[in-house]
Formats: sequence, structure tokens, C-alpha cells
Amino acid sequence: MMFTPTNYDTYDFANRRHIGPSPAEMAEMLKAVGVQSLDQLVDETVPRAIRQDAPLSWAPMTEHAMLAKLREVAAKNRVMTSLIGQGYYGTVTPPAIQRNILENPAWYTAYTPYQPEIAQGRLEALLNYQTMVADLTGLPVANASLLDEATAAAEAMTMAERSAKSKARAFFVDDNLHPQTIAVIETRAAPLGISIVRGQPEDLKPEEVFGAIFQYPGSFGHIRDFTDMIAALHDAKALAVMATDLLALCLLKEPGAMGADIAVGSAQRFGVPMGYGGPHAAFMSCRDELKRAMPGRIVGVSIDSHGDPAYRLSLQTREQHIRREKATSNVCTAQALLAVMASFYAVFHGPKGLRAIAERVHFNAVRLRDALVAAGAKVSPQQFFDTITVEVGVGQLGILAAAELRGINLRKIGRDRVGISLDELTDDDVLARLLDAFGITEPPAVSCGLAIPDVLLRESDYLTHPVFHMNRAESEMMRYMRRLSDRDLALDRAMIPLGSCTMKLNAAAEMMPLTWPEFGALHPFAPYNQAAGYHEAISDLTEKLCEITGYDAFSMQPNSGAQGEYAGLLTIAAYHRARGEGHRDVCLIPVSAHGTNPASAQMAGMKVVVVKSAPNGDVDLEDFTAKAEAAGDKLAACMITYPSTHGVFEETVRAICDITHRHGGQVYLDGANMNALVGLVKPGEIGSDVSHLNLHKTFAIPHGGGGPGMGPIGVKAHLAPFLPGHPVSGGAEGPVSAAPYGSASILLISWAYCLMMGGAGLTQATKVAILNANYIAARLKVGYPILFMGNRGRVAHECIVDTRPFAEMGVTVDDIAKRLIDNGFHAPTMSWPVAGTLMVEPTESETKAEIDRFITAMLAIREEITAVERGEITAEESPLRRAPHTVEDLVADWDRPYTREQGCFPPGSFREDKYWPPVGRVDNVYGDRNLICICPPVESYAAE
Amino acid sequence: MMFTPTNYDTYDFANRRHIGPSPAEMAEMLKAVGVQSLDQLVDETVPRAIRQDAPLSWAPMTEHAMLAKLREVAAKNRVMTSLIGQGYYGTVTPPAIQRNILENPAWYTAYTPYQPEIAQGRLEALLNYQTMVADLTGLPVANASLLDEATAAAEAMTMAERSAKSKARAFFVDDNLHPQTIAVIETRAAPLGISIVRGQPEDLKPEEVFGAIFQYPGSFGHIRDFTDMIAALHDAKALAVMATDLLALCLLKEPGAMGADIAVGSAQRFGVPMGYGGPHAAFMSCRDELKRAMPGRIVGVSIDSHGDPAYRLSLQTREQHIRREKATSNVCTAQALLAVMASFYAVFHGPKGLRAIAERVHFNAVRLRDALVAAGAKVSPQQFFDTITVEVGVGQLGILAAAELRGINLRKIGRDRVGISLDELTDDDVLARLLDAFGITEPPAVSCGLAIPDVLLRESDYLTHPVFHMNRAESEMMRYMRRLSDRDLALDRAMIPLGSCTMKLNAAAEMMPLTWPEFGALHPFAPYNQAAGYHEAISDLTEKLCEITGYDAFSMQPNSGAQGEYAGLLTIAAYHRARGEGHRDVCLIPVSAHGTNPASAQMAGMKVVVVKSAPNGDVDLEDFTAKAEAAGDKLAACMITYPSTHGVFEETVRAICDITHRHGGQVYLDGANMNALVGLVKPGEIGSDVSHLNLHKTFAIPHGGGGPGMGPIGVKAHLAPFLPGHPVSGGAEGPVSAAPYGSASILLISWAYCLMMGGAGLTQATKVAILNANYIAARLKVGYPILFMGNRGRVAHECIVDTRPFAEMGVTVDDIAKRLIDNGFHAPTMSWPVAGTLMVEPTESETKAEIDRFITAMLAIREEITAVERGEITAEESPLRRAPHTVEDLVADWDRPYTREQGCFPPGSFREDKYWPPVGRVDNVYGDRNLICICPPVESYAAE
Repeated sequence: MMFTPTNYDTYDFANRRHIGPSPAEMAEMLKAVGVQSLDQLVDETVPRAIRQDAPLSWAPMTEHAMLAKLREVAAKNRVMTSLIGQGYYGTVTPPAIQRNILENPAWYTAYTPYQPEIAQGRLEALLNYQTMVADLTGLPVANASLLDEATAAAEAMTMAERSAKSKARAFFVDDNLHPQTIAVIETRAAPLGISIVRGQPEDLKPEEVFGAIFQYPGSFGHIRDFTDMIAALHDAKALAVMATDLLALCLLKEPGAMGADIAVGSAQRFGVPMGYGGPHAAFMSCRDELKRAMPGRIVGVSIDSHGDPAYRLSLQTREQHIRREKATSNVCTAQALLAVMASFYAVFHGPKGLRAIAERVHFNAVRLRDALVAAGAKVSPQQFFDTITVEVGVGQLGILAAAELRGINLRKIGRDRVGISLDELTDDDVLARLLDAFGITEPPAVSCGLAIPDVLLRESDYLTHPVFHMNRAESEMMRYMRRLSDRDLALDRAMIPLGSCTMKLNAAAEMMPLTWPEFGALHPFAPYNQAAGYHEAISDLTEKLCEITGYDAFSMQPNSGAQGEYAGLLTIAAYHRARGEGHRDVCLIPVSAHGTNPASAQMAGMKVVVVKSAPNGDVDLEDFTAKAEAAGDKLAACMITYPSTHGVFEETVRAICDITHRHGGQVYLDGANMNALVGLVKPGEIGSDVSHLNLHKTFAIPHGGGGPGMGPIGVKAHLAPFLPGHPVSGGAEGPVSAAPYGSASILLISWAYCLMMGGAGLTQATKVAILNANYIAARLKVGYPILFMGNRGRVAHECIVDTRPFAEMGVTVDDIAKRLIDNGFHAPTMSWPVAGTLMVEPTESETKAEIDRFITAMLAIREEITAVERGEITAEESPLRRAPHTVEDLVADWDRPYTREQGCFPPGSFREDKYWPPVGRVDNVYGDRNLICICPPVESYAAE
Repeated sequence: MMFTPTNYDTYDFANRRHIGPSPAEMAEMLKAVGVQSLDQLVDETVPRAIRQDAPLSWAPMTEHAMLAKLREVAAKNRVMTSLIGQGYYGTVTPPAIQRNILENPAWYTAYTPYQPEIAQGRLEALLNYQTMVADLTGLPVANASLLDEATAAAEAMTMAERSAKSKARAFFVDDNLHPQTIAVIETRAAPLGISIVRGQPEDLKPEEVFGAIFQYPGSFGHIRDFTDMIAALHDAKALAVMATDLLALCLLKEPGAMGADIAVGSAQRFGVPMGYGGPHAAFMSCRDELKRAMPGRIVGVSIDSHGDPAYRLSLQTREQHIRREKATSNVCTAQALLAVMASFYAVFHGPKGLRAIAERVHFNAVRLRDALVAAGAKVSPQQFFDTITVEVGVGQLGILAAAELRGINLRKIGRDRVGISLDELTDDDVLARLLDAFGITEPPAVSCGLAIPDVLLRESDYLTHPVFHMNRAESEMMRYMRRLSDRDLALDRAMIPLGSCTMKLNAAAEMMPLTWPEFGALHPFAPYNQAAGYHEAISDLTEKLCEITGYDAFSMQPNSGAQGEYAGLLTIAAYHRARGEGHRDVCLIPVSAHGTNPASAQMAGMKVVVVKSAPNGDVDLEDFTAKAEAAGDKLAACMITYPSTHGVFEETVRAICDITHRHGGQVYLDGANMNALVGLVKPGEIGSDVSHLNLHKTFAIPHGGGGPGMGPIGVKAHLAPFLPGHPVSGGAEGPVSAAPYGSASILLISWAYCLMMGGAGLTQATKVAILNANYIAARLKVGYPILFMGNRGRVAHECIVDTRPFAEMGVTVDDIAKRLIDNGFHAPTMSWPVAGTLMVEPTESETKAEIDRFITAMLAIREEITAVERGEITAEESPLRRAPHTVEDLVADWDRPYTREQGCFPPGSFREDKYWPPVGRVDNVYGDRNLICICPPVESYAAE
């Protein structure tokens, strides 16, 4: 008998994990697209002239081998008790939250909740978060999170500038802020022409500033009453910002009660691992009068088509329709997944539990202070919450070493002090080891003494809403988390075909290392040698990203895509300054650019000059040339997206780079569409000088329901010296984020993705992403015009479906989006980059079967539009307008001109596994008009 | 200002995790029950006379501290490459399966799928499992898993005995079986009077046996063609059993093609971690003629009320209605969760992928053999799949040590051989280290040589059903797993109020260590010193269980509750034999006993004598006395359940123990209801000699949708020498399970539970379990008679709701059970221990809110029954009979005498978070009449 060995790679070896269509499916798809091979399609799509020569070099790894490697790397990190504080604290992530949120694809694969009907679960969790922040800070309005405490403080500064009536151009910064917060504020202020005045709070001269930021408790532990200073600021028509700590506020008088206008801080210590710097949710809250000036997403309460309460993102229009030339902030970035975790932490503990934790931390700090003082140590301050500093003189390094020997990291302050910040994890064992490092062997006394003055004790209640008073048995908590996740539609149930958002698979193997304690428990400012594993990972990832992009160096600091753009432009500006060309400040941006581009340019102090589009959607080369010439030696940069935001590989990209360089400018190539380039085109080889990569798009970090993201920037060698620095890790330039490597822990996801895919796998992914998009374009064009098909009738990795022709029949792009919910799909990107269109990006991860289901749904919708067109039904009465259909619709009386069956089970929808939206279509206008962004009182649900 | 420290333990410190009712809720519940305090209720419920004196001693730990401790303990295990084979092999659990099945409460908290309408997801996965087993073994019928390979082999023996026409009383056992399989068969055979004939296959004399079992491939690697031997057995009217290996069968001729009647084996190497012995799914398949004799659960295909295909457990009646006196096997035990994992492993890989893995393993084995032979080693056998043995003479210990130094465990065979079994994880690195241990430094040749003779190469296809040909991209796999889990209702969505099944919380923290590689990757026969962590865990758990039960020693070997009963009775029998009283063989069992009790007694070679119940449900003490006297010096044991299966703390328990002891018998106290005793009553102190504990009920191991379980037995000191032994780990008696510590890895769950609860927490859990049950009884008695309320009108931890009065109105217990699905509940235990009743056990984990929801549902159902009673609606037309209601019902035309609203949203059901069963009521009769237990061809779904 002949034995023929099987010619088949097992699923893992073949990287079928990430690549949706099977070989057989691909053959059918190529046929539908009308090409002989995948390579032919790629050749017809991606211009030869810009293709890279050498394939990406490294070999793929199996899941098992990758995980074994990451375990080895993890073992090189040393998990210590870090009492460094400075914005990062030990905390306990309740295992039920870890399992059911952080490790659950229903939560982590979700997209930003722009489509509220399929996002009620995470909207509720985020509303809980806002309520928690508003309550604890004593300010009535909170947003759904920001990137980190330092950037939140910088945002507060610009918000104060926008809102204060004072005409001053300076901003006061308390020396008691964390050093990284001060540094990020300074970075942000300089290009905006804001001067920073630093000093102790008592140095503040209110009439000279438009605002001031204080830290409470201060970085070195002080707590003070800012009431009078804030009043003085208000008298001078200036605003007061307080950087604060949620756990401390469980005991301390809240910023709102002192009159503060804005509060910011980090919710990290509410159950989110330190992760060597992130991701964590920062928070911001403000007085009611300022709410429309607040950056970031705000979840609000509106009503649905049945008049029932429903959650949605409020004031969404400002996010999706940033006015390009006037944009001043990258308002859209959040840390949704981490905010959700922090909110559940508060739900798990409730106000009494949080207060008990705060008291435990405080009493331990008092015991520590008492023991140190009894032994003769000089300890300050007198009044504190969790942080003290000890004067140790020339013994500083000795104490630090003695503590490290006992498994404890302390904070080095100046040359003669150490800082100690206690946290939820501090127990008698930690205290004993810590005191032992100071040569004190008696156990600390059990004391309930307070180091908080009466006037700073909190008097008001907080977290009074019933959600924070649920029964906290784990069964109840688990079911609450499950119920919320079931209300949402995420990648674990269906394709999310969002243009420009690259909702690809986030593989389970890639997610696993994230929750290993060797990666989770590291403080970002822990001694370098304790993080050898992280440095190995970051360095290898950097090497691979350099090979992929053709750049020479990377900064991992920017913790969002927009932050990356901003950091890239700052790098360019610093480069010009260093060459004595600091006057260069013109940035050319095509009209079709991402809205974040002009915003970033403005923030970097550049003047935006908009370049026209040609009729085919390409950059108008003539206009570009003219405007570059007009800028002349003022030209700082151009910002282009490649392939373009229209999803086209423009042939002119090299020309644009050449023109820019000829005028002394630098090219910023937006990495949003990098998923169409990896392995085929290296931006650094076609003339670009700097790009950010969206690791949360192209490199498999999950979207987390609206964050975290990571936006590292790659640069050519000449720009490398000008990459962001950091007060802790060094560097000539200022930082853009709080932590040296941004949200370091999620870099592991991208690294695991690169390791497992190998160079060839990444390249194949790019090709299949292009195939999937072209297949959709080829199949949908029978029903819909497809825009911008390029010279050869091909799209890149996404395609734009034109729905404008239906407007005159009364069918809107919204109707189509909501009808897709009935089919069990998240809508494509709406009205961007062209109003009235849908942009579809299937990514390489989707199978032909799932894509076909989407096509079936879209063509069925087209039939329903045709029925309207023919006058068989009005748009108002049609299932398009009445979508999405809910169980409530089914149960209620049915007086519609179509059947329940037609309404609820349109072609493409699953039958027994159908997703049912928990609410009908949500009323946007009502919600914006009646902005409610904390949990509404229970009575308001009485009708339910 | 006065500062009063918060008097509040945070959720973790207070063990609110496991205890459902909050203190405030408890106060209300006590009032409803009519007592002043929890202790008063306990005093009224649990007789003072039997209460333990001292409270349980150990302090609770927080989740964080427990996990830190378990990490320390885990680090004491050494993860090596174990090539020991002998039924346990390295395997890769695809991370997506680990995350989405093993770590997902939607799968692991589910109950056995007796209620098919809310279990279609896991029924489909189990049907896939059966199809996989049937296909690979070449036998048409498979069950949904058994405990382990060794017990499956023993079951096959008794099945052959029941089914063979031969009158012989001997069973032939191939010496090539794994030693533990032989030992378990011998253990099982002795009490049944079956004589075991051992030898090489060629020694078999067919006419002298009713059956024979061969292993293929053999434990030492041999593969042979058994076709002729099987034919000879058939000629002698005897049956042939083959113990086999699913991965080998991807290349080898299947047992069915050789004529085998029954195949058994382990599905461990299909993606299930070794876990130091388990849990894993064993399999069994057989010829069609034998299917009704096959033990274990069988998933089959039936139709639902709409006539659509629906899955269910077939032949269920035999499980639920074991004829007490005639029972011969504990048929109800399975390893559902692990079978589900193995089935998904096959779905992930498909037939080609599995074959590629099998080839890789085989080719590596050939390369290894060739390299060893080239170096002059004596290697056998000539023909093999993955296992070879090497003659090493006096160098044996040297080779074992050399391998261990290189991170590899080999199998010690006799005094001069080592065995090597390769697996999916074997790669060039492993081969190089392995050869290095033999002093061979050249890398092995790359060869595709075969060591399988042509006649043994597989010729038939397998896994041809479309489910094994899905697109294997991870997105598709993830969504398939999610879709299946969404069809099921488990603890993560609602209470499962099953009497006698103790569906309590399985806390996330308790589940976490299970999937750490330090616990998962250990081979059960790895050298003792590599498992120091396991031994520390097992020893501390043993100590705690001894304190809880009042016993002196424990065996962790029994891997199910029924197995524990059986092992306990074997221990008693061995004790009698050792005292020269081997003639004692009468076992007294109350008529109300668990069905498994008489089955276990029969298996242990005892004669069951049934004792009557008194009218109040208690054991009839007079009858017990009379029967004990009648048995006289033949009395071996009595088996009692305490509190009784009626949920009553019988006052007579000490008397029963005394009578038994007076006649020289031993008392077996069934631990099924231990949840009502922990911390209050120690069985070992009230006269019992031995008990099994259901760790999967009382001690927080999840039910896994029908397994795994763990049933360790505790004994008083005099019985300790007679506990089960094991051929690998030693002991005088034979083993009952394949691995020395049964399913060792899940012991960690119970240990974590004990550690975190502390003695006081466990005791509080018992009290609250009693409160919850009494609260239900107190609230439901307005609508339903409650049976067996005890002398003081109290129930124990469960209560029996009488629904027999409704029978005459045409409302069945089934109607109530199915109507509860509309309310989003799993039905209570039906018709046990009393036909026509529902037994409800809420457990301590359920909150008052969830219990109230259940009470609301039950009382609303009572209203619906009243409507039938009053003649307002017929039973046939009522929502009771038409339940459960599905989305299909809603969408279709509605011609029922009640509204859609009334049908679908009865009181107690969730509104926006409602669970919708994917099928209507399933037809049991149809399914049993048309037994289909592999995936039906796709055409049969055409109607869908």
C-alpha cells in the first residue's frame, strides 16, 4: 500500500488562526473578483513602484511555542512590592472581573459604542464609571475616561484655557504634581503658546493665570485645603483644576466641595493592574457649566423608539465632525475596557467597601509613620493619606537597596529622600519588611490614628446609586457582567466591518500573557533591571516594526493613534528647531485626512493648510505643489494617509514626498491604513519620515469597546534623537504620555501577533485583507455604487459604498446601519470620509461565509430600498426606518405593513442564534438636548 | 469632627463571594421563616445531639492571598517533558478552547443536559464528540464519555458479560494493556465473580472467556492485527473489546474494521491537559446491536414541538430510574467538559489536521528509533505508532537520570528497559535532548519512513461530517463556541435549583490555578519529587477534609461520587476480609437511597437488602433493626444518606449506626448532602465509618455540563489500610481509577475554596444553605404542599415541592419544569426522590433577589394551574403545556388563548435579558425510538 504523507499544515502552524478565508474559499473569491491569483490582485492594487523588495524575514511560531517563549520572557521580570506611588499603586483585580471582563472576548473585542442599540451593556458600565467619578470628585459631570493622568491634566489645561474668562496666557502648575504630569503639561503647553508657571500652591498669583492645577494628595503626600486658593482664582476669572486620587477621596473632602472646576486623575488603583505603565483609565469631571467644553466621550441617557430609557454617547457630533482646521484636541480617545473594569471594581466594593479599603491604607500609613518617627526618622508631611517621605540623607541609596533586598521598591526623591506610598496590598508582612529595611524590627503598633485634619475629612455621601449597592455575592456580580455583555454585539459574535478601524481577530493566545502577574504587577518606574522581560519584548517588537515599516527607530510612548500623530509632529518640530529652522510651521493636510490629523497639527503648534482632492479622491497634486511652494521655507510637514482614506493606493505618493522634502519639509504618513501595507510596502522606503502605527488596529490589540489603543511612532534615523523622552527614563525631549512605554502591557499582544504570524504570515494577512475588500466591492456593486475604485478598478483593504442616491427616497445611511443590526451586524463606518456613504473594511480575519452573510444582508437591504423606490412602501413605514427590531416589537401588537418574520429575520440574520438589540432606535437629539451623564435615579425607570 | 472607622469587611475579606444573601436580606428571610436568628433556625433544623463541638479551625484567606499561595505551591511542581506515555501524553490545548470553554463559566457552570431545551449547545458539542469517537474507532455508536480509560475498560468488561452469549465466566486481559487498566479491571472483576485471564494475545483461548480486551497500540508500543483473534472470539460467542488511542487511529486501521465489538480509550491527548491524572474524557463505542447495553450518557437526535431537529440525552430513563436492586453499573458519570474540549480540538484540526499531527508524531518516533538503532541500541517493537522501548540493562537508572537532567521523563519498565512515547509536543529540540541522554549527539535524520505495516494502515475516511470541515480561522471557531454556549442556560445567568446537586458558585479565583501550566502539564506518573506542589496541596486539603468530616484518612482516587461509594464499599469489604470475615456481604439500603447506592453495593459484591421508609420519609427504624438482625453475622454494611434524601435530619442516625456496629457491620454515610453538614456535623463523630464527598457539589468544583466530578472517600482509622492502592503509587488494595489521585488538578478548586472560606466561612455557608431552603419552603407553601418538613417544620438544605395534586387536572411535573424555562430557570430535580415532585436546593450562593425571582415564577405557575383547575383554560391549551416558548413561536401566527406577552414574559422572567430556548419542547419518545447518536447528515436539516 502506498503511503502518502499528508500535505497539510495544522491550523496553528499554517496561521489559519488570523486568516479568514480558507484556501478553497479564496479560490472562489478570486474568481468573483476576476483574477487568477492573489498575487495578481495585489499587483493590480498596490503599485509595483512602491513595493518592498525583500520579504519580511522572521519565521512564524506556533501558539504553544510563542506562549513558552513569553513565559521565559516573563520570568525575566521581577515582581516586587512597589511602593513607589507617583500615580501607580498595587491593587487587587477581583478574579471575577479579570475572568469575565478582561479575559472575555465579549468585552474586549467590542468596538466604540457609536451604535448605541448594540452597545447598551458597555454604555451602562461606562455610565457607572462616570457616576463613580462624579460622585467621588464631587463634580456633577464626568467623561467616560481619558488616556492617562498626565494627558488628562494637559487636557484640563487646554479646557481651562478655552473656558476661562481670564485673558492671561499662563497656567500655574503645582510642584506637587507627579513629575510626569508636569512634564506632559509642559510638552503640551509649549506649542500652544501657553506659559507654565511652577511653584508651591502658595506661590500662585491668580491674576496672572487663566488657570491652575493642584495635586491632592500631592505627589509627596501632602494634603491641603485649596478652598481659598480656588476662590481667589475664581475672583480672577481663572479656573482651578485638581489632580486627585479616587481612593483618597473615599476619606478626603472632595474637590467639588473646595470649589474646583475640573478634577482629573487615574482610576488605575481601582482594580487595574499596573502593567508597567498601562493601560489604565484616566478620569475627568467638571462643573456643569463646563460640560460642553469637556474633552472625551460622554455617555448619556436618552430614549429609544418606544420612549424607554436608553444609553448613548452624547455630543457625538463633535467627535465625528471635528472641524478640521480648528480642532484643538484629540477628543476621541478613551480607555473604555479599563474604565469598565474600574467601574466594576466600585460595584464590587460599594461605597462602604471602598471606604474600608481607603481606611486600611491610611491606617497602615499612619502605623508606618509612627514606627519610623519612633525610631527617630524624619518623616513628612504631617498630614497625608497614603504617602510619606523620609529624609535619609546620604543613606538614600542604602535604604533603596535594603528595601529592594526585601522585595520592596521605594521612590527615590532628590538625593536624600525616599517616598513610600502604601496601597490596597499593603499588609503586616509588607510593613514588617519595609521597617526591617530601616533597621526597625518591632512590629508597628495597631492604631487607628488619623493623619487627616478634620477640615479635610469627607462629609458627603458618594456612590448612593443602587448599582453600587447591589448584592455583592459573586454569583450576582457574574450575572450582572454577563447580562451587560449579552446586550452588546462584538467580534465574538459577528464581523464588525468598520472602515479604517481594522476590527480583526484578537487571538486568545495573544491575550493570555497580559494577565500573567509577571507582566501585570510591574510598576512603570520600577528599577530597569526588574523589567528585563519587558525590555526584551519591547526591543524585539521594535526591531520587527522597523523591518515592517522601513524606519530606524520607534518610540512606544504614545498610547493612542492620535497621540502618535501628535508625537510624530512634535518630533518633526524638534528636528526643525535643532537645525535652527524653528520657524517652519506649515503643515499640508489633504481635505480627505483623518480628523485627528489637523487636530494633531494644531496641538503641535503648526498651521494647517488644506490640500484639495482630485475628482478621483486622490490628493490634487497640482494643488499640493502650489501650496508647498507657497509655504516655502515655512513648510514643516505634510500629513498623508496611505493608502488614502478613500481606500486607494495613490500613484503619486512618491511625488508628494519628493515635493515636501524639496521644500525642507518632513513627511508624516498616517499609519491608520497600515493593514494594507505590512509586508508589501515600507513607508520608510517610499519617502516618509515618520508614521504612527495603530497597534490596536493593524497589530491585533483589541478595541476594548473604545480603548485601549497604542500608537507608537517610527522615524527615520535623522529624527530619532527627537523622539519623546520621559523624566524617569530620560531623553532630550518632553514626554507625551505618563509612562515611558505608554501602555506597555498591551505591547505584548502585538509582539505575540508578530511572533506567531511570522513575516510571511503578516504579508499574507495584508494580501487577504485586500482580497476580502475587493470581494465585497465586486459583489456589492450590483446593488450599490462603489466609490474610488482606483485606476484599475480595485480598492485597497476597504471600500466605500455610496448610499447617497437613496436619500431622495427618504432612506438614510442611518436606516441602513440600523437595519444591519437586524441582520446581526455592526454598521460600517458611516459618512466618512464621504458624507452619506458607508465604508467597509472586512479585514483578513473574516471568512468568506461571514462576508457572504454581510453581502446577503446588504443586498437584501437594497431590495427593501427598491421597494421604497417603487412606491410599494414608504420609507417611514418600511422595515428600514423601523429598524432595529426588538423582542418588544415582536411581543407587542403588530400594525406594520410587513410581517414580523420580515422585520426580524431579514436575509443574512441568524435564526436560532440571532442577536436581539435590547432597545429600539435611540433618539440622538433628545439625548443631546437633555444631557444626563450619571446613572439616573431608579424612579426614572419605573415605567420599565 | 468625630471619625468612626468603617465597620465593614470588604467583599473579599467577608466571604461575601460565596454567600448569597446579604446581611440585610438575611434578616428579612429569617423573618419570613419565623425565627429570630440564623442560629435559632439551625438549632431547630439540625439536632443538637449530633452537632460537632469545636468550630472548624483555620482562618480564611483573601482571593489575592490564596492565589499568591497557590503560585508558591505551583512553583514547587517541576514541569518536564514527560514521554512516559502509559495513557497520558503531551498535547496542545488551543488557547481559544482554553479561554472560551475551560475558562468560561457559560460552559463550566452548566449542569448535566437533562433539560434539553436549555442545553442544545453542549448537546451539540457532545454529539460532535460521539461522532468523532464513532468515526475514529470505526464503530457506529459512541457515548458522551466515561470517567477514564481504566474504568471504561472495566465497564466494557461488564458490558461484554451482560451481552455475550458465551456462558464462560472469565475475561481475557491482554498483558499489553496499561498496568493501571489491568489493575482497575481486576479490582472490578473480583467482587463480581469474574475471573481474569491474563496473557499475550496469542495465549487467548476464546472458548474459555465471555470476552477479551486487547490494547492497540499496546502499552509498550506494539501494533498488531486482531482480526483473526476477534473472529475466533465471535465464533465462541464471546465479545472483543479494544482499548485504543484516537490519535493513533488517524493512521491505523480502526477497531471496527477488525471486527471489534467495543472500543474504549482516553480522549486526553485531544487537547486536554494531563493535570497530574485528570480530569479527561474516556470514550466508549460499540456495534449497533450493543448500543442499549452501553453504559454512560448518550446524546441523540430527536425533534421538538415544531418538528425541528433537537438534541437530547437518549435512553435517559435508564439513568434516572435505575432499578435499585438490579443495578450493576454507575452509568450516570461522564466527563462532559473534557469531552467538549476534545470535540472542539477535533473541530479545530479537522481530519487532515489530526492526521498531520499523527504523522508528525509517528515520523518523529521512527526518527528516534532509527537514531537509537544506528547507535547500537536494542529497540522494540518493530512496528509501532508513537511508543518504543529500549533495552538498557543495568544502565536503566542511569538513562532515566540522564533524561531527567535534560528535562525529560521516560517510563521505567521492569529493571532493564525504558519506554518512550512521543506526542504532539515532540519537536527537534526534544529529540535532541532525548538522544543526548543516550549519548547520541548527531541530530536524527529527517525521514518519512513508516513503522506501520500496510495491513494496519487506515483505509477508511473519518470525520466527514461538515462540522469537522468548518473554516478553522479562529474568528469562526470562537463564534461557533459562543453560539453554542449562548443556547444554554447555566449558573452564569440564573440559579439552578437542583435538589441533591448543590449547584453553588464556582468562584473565578478558584478556577484560575487550574490552567496554570505548573498544574496542567504534569504527568500522573512523573517522579514524586517533581510534584511537590501537588502533594502539598493534596495533603493540606486532606487535613482540612479530615477536620470537616471527623475521619482519619482520605483517598483522593475516586473520580466521581458514585466511584467514591464503590471505593468506600470495597474498603469495607477488604476490612472484613482482613479480619477473616469475608463472608459478610449484606448491605442495608433505605428505599429512599440514591440510585447509585445499590448499584455500588452490587458492584462491590454485596447483596442489597432494602429498608422501608416510615411515613415521614425517615428510615423505618423497626424495619432496619429487623433486617440487621436477620443479616446477623452476614451484615457487611449499611448505606445511609444524611441528611436524608428527603432533606430531613433524621433523629435516628446514631441509632442506625449503633445497630449496624452491634452486628459487626460498617456504616457508609453518603456524602451527597454534605452541604448541610460542613461545620455543623462531622459524619465521623456520629458513628459513620466511611463517606465519599462530592467535591463537585459541596466543595465548589463546577459541574462542567455533566462532569468532571471528584468523589474522594474519608474513613476512620481502622479502615485506612484498606483504601484503594495503585500499581504506580503503591498500596495493598487495587485501584478504582486510572490515576493515583483521580482527577488531581480539580482538587485545587476545592482546596482554594476551603482556603478562602476558612472554617467559619464554610460553616456560615452551611447555615445559609439551610436558611435559603427554609425560606423557599416558607414562601412556597402558600401554593404548594412541601413534603417532609421534619419534626419541627423545618427542611434541611433542600425541600420537596409536591406537584402530584395537579396531575388530575392534566398538569404534569414536566409542564412546570418547562414553564420555568420561560422564566429563565433550570427546573428543580424532577420526580426524585418522590415521583411527581420537584426537589429544590438553592445553595448558599443564591441571593434573596434570585430566590425571590424563583418564588415569583413558581407562584405564577401555580396561578396558571389554578386557571386550569377552574376550567378557564385546558391544560393542553395552557402556557404550561405549550412551554417553553421560543422566538419562533413569537414570530409565527399566534392562535393561543393567551397573549404572546403572557406566554413569553411570565412573572419572574427577565425582560431585556431574557433567555430564549433555541428549540421548543423536545419529544423524548421519538428520540428513544429513533436512536441517532452521531451528527445527522446535513440534508436532515434542510427544512431549517
